[in-house]
Amino acid sequence: MVPTKKEGRAKDEEVIKKLEGLGQDMLEQIKAKSTPTFTTALRSKGNIIYDQGIGYIRLGDKTEERRFVNVGQARKFMQTVAIASKCKKFLNEDAHTSIRGLFYQLKFSLGENLDEELFSEQSESNPLVEDLEVALNVKREDLNLNTDRKGVVAGPLVLRDKFGGTEDEIDCTRQGRSGWMIPSDVDNGMEFKSVDADYVLVVEKDAMWQRLNEDKYWKKENCILITPKGQASRGCRRLIRKLASKKLPVYVFTDCDAWGWYIYWAIKTGSMNLAYLGQDIATPEARFVGVTMRDIKDYDFLAQLTIKAKEVDIKRAEEMLSYEWILHHKDWVEELKTVLKTKRKLEQDALQGPRLSFVGDYLKEKIAKKKFLA
Amino acid sequence: MVPTKKEGRAKDEEVIKKLEGLGQDMLEQIKAKSTPTFTTALRSKGNIIYDQGIGYIRLGDKTEERRFVNVGQARKFMQTVAIASKCKKFLNEDAHTSIRGLFYQLKFSLGENLDEELFSEQSESNPLVEDLEVALNVKREDLNLNTDRKGVVAGPLVLRDKFGGTEDEIDCTRQGRSGWMIPSDVDNGMEFKSVDADYVLVVEKDAMWQRLNEDKYWKKENCILITPKGQASRGCRRLIRKLASKKLPVYVFTDCDAWGWYIYWAIKTGSMNLAYLGQDIATPEARFVGVTMRDIKDYDFLAQLTIKAKEVDIKRAEEMLSYEWILHHKDWVEELKTVLKTKRKLEQDALQGPRLSFVGDYLKEKIAKKKFLA
Repeated sequence: MVPTKKEGRAKDEEVIKKLEGLGQDMLEQIKAKSTPTFTTALRSKGNIIYDQGIGYIRLGDKTEERRFVNVGQARKFMQTVAIASKCKKFLNEDAHTSIRGLFYQLKFSLGENLDEELFSEQSESNPLVEDLEVALNVKREDLNLNTDRKGVVAGPLVLRDKFGGTEDEIDCTRQGRSGWMIPSDVDNGMEFKSVDADYVLVVEKDAMWQRLNEDKYWKKENCILITPKGQASRGCRRLIRKLASKKLPVYVFTDCDAWGWYIYWAIKTGSMNLAYLGQDIATPEARFVGVTMRDIKDYDFLAQLTIKAKEVDIKRAEEMLSYEWILHHKDWVEELKTVLKTKRKLEQDALQGPRLSFVGDYLKEKIAKKKFLA
Repeated sequence: MVPTKKEGRAKDEEVIKKLEGLGQDMLEQIKAKSTPTFTTALRSKGNIIYDQGIGYIRLGDKTEERRFVNVGQARKFMQTVAIASKCKKFLNEDAHTSIRGLFYQLKFSLGENLDEELFSEQSESNPLVEDLEVALNVKREDLNLNTDRKGVVAGPLVLRDKFGGTEDEIDCTRQGRSGWMIPSDVDNGMEFKSVDADYVLVVEKDAMWQRLNEDKYWKKENCILITPKGQASRGCRRLIRKLASKKLPVYVFTDCDAWGWYIYWAIKTGSMNLAYLGQDIATPEARFVGVTMRDIKDYDFLAQLTIKAKEVDIKRAEEMLSYEWILHHKDWVEELKTVLKTKRKLEQDALQGPRLSFVGDYLKEKIAKKKFLA
């Protein structure tokens, strides 16, 4: 029952050392009578690259230097140092909190001079914490800062979860109707005990996941069934990345519309706002299993179950057709052009039209026949 | 391993009988050469009552009769009958789906004449399904229609979950960092194997729940720790109701602001749009443990951690002071007036200001001293 926490602590010590190094560098700069500086990778658009060779979005080589003696940067500089100090404290205490908890710790120590909007859970890309992540080459999860968690998993995957002084074994085949909720951090204190699956199926909507879970799709197909519940959280993308690294094929099943395409491409290539995490969260190996407009050729009944494409779907399709990396994939180009031409779209739920269990047959067939888009 | 499903099936049979009864009544009306009618409780504002005696919001006695031979009602009438027929099919097949899945089944059978907006997961109060729920006195979960699930639980609670042909035992003390995700339906096929807790603590924010879970608050205090993750889902409210029926005290811990108050009162008294489910989901026994503006008297440091109340907080406080049932609670009136006077509010996260683990000490002390608002 009592966890060894060996690996966990070793990782923590490493991060603490990095945080200390940051402070020591600044102290030395002060001793040498120069102004403290802080160097981090530039995260603005000009330094975000879709790297065709590796297949995901990453930061380029441009860096940015923050200087303490700069009127525009002094306050943020101080806040960044204060955050680094708090994170070191959290790591030493072996306790996690949210961005909001961090905000109140800072407010308690520093007083009123804090922009609370910067520390809302909604502001996904908190620039101050990102500065630290990038400068130290760690994820905020490694700094004991939890991010919003979302998504559920079921199937032949057993995890060892060391957390809060105990260790639990999570068997994702025994989680009933609910499945196991994907946490913020799937690295620290967390390991795969066994992964005995043939592939990973990622299903956009929770309702569809529940449908497949009820039919024990993951059991019949020996796969790991994940839903991000819409846009995938950092933890969910990281879990998918880790499973792909175990050589499991990853298939993604979304609506054929703006939102569905975005969810797929964010899992596959990462996203602009998380470009600095590219290699940790992107899964270029992922393939798109459906639904597609071309499915209508194979499954007649879908023709009557399309619905009107919204403004946002049309706009997104046009946008995607302007991306160089999409143009390399003829199947995607054809798909997007069909939506633009017909002004119709298709939801994954439509596969339940003739009978509720049809969706499982559809997936089985498409996966067996390898009918994927890139 | 193989479930008996005895109770589950018995419940299903009962609901199927009710659905058949609905159809048979209509057939008899047709045979008697009168027009089919369908009687349901009126769900508009004029028939929604806050019942002070029982402490929750319920429907009054007014009913509404829908007639097939009414130009304005014929289409909806037909759709309601079609939904009843589909739900009977789902129950016979022992398969669940979402409102969206139901939409596509209807679209497949009935063709284009369906208002898809009526069947979006976002339209919380789908009037057609509600008609059935009210007329048959069942919950949509009993009709095998899943609702949006949300919320997490940890603590000394063991559940038996019979679902999709297997049975799993869920021990909520062994769910690691994640906790157990609260499903849409906590009644059918689901039972408490054991509940060995002293009380239930409901925590508004997931981040705060994770903080308390990491500190094993539920273990130290022998309580069941729930987060609805904001506004409580139907399943979460139902679970709280069921635990309260086991004679466990229920304490709710939210922000001191518009959203927090709403979450508390919805758990306690139910809500207008779910008035027809009042007794199944309301927990009038619930007490409000914090955070409160008066906490500042006992915990000095909170004074510097208040933040500016928003427009919506001010408006909500004014609104609540116009409700008769709030005026009965002097402590609530005082609380709301303090917000209006100071134009400040307090978040539960502020309790992490001095140290991350302080929030547990705060809760322990307030619960021990029974410092609750009604």
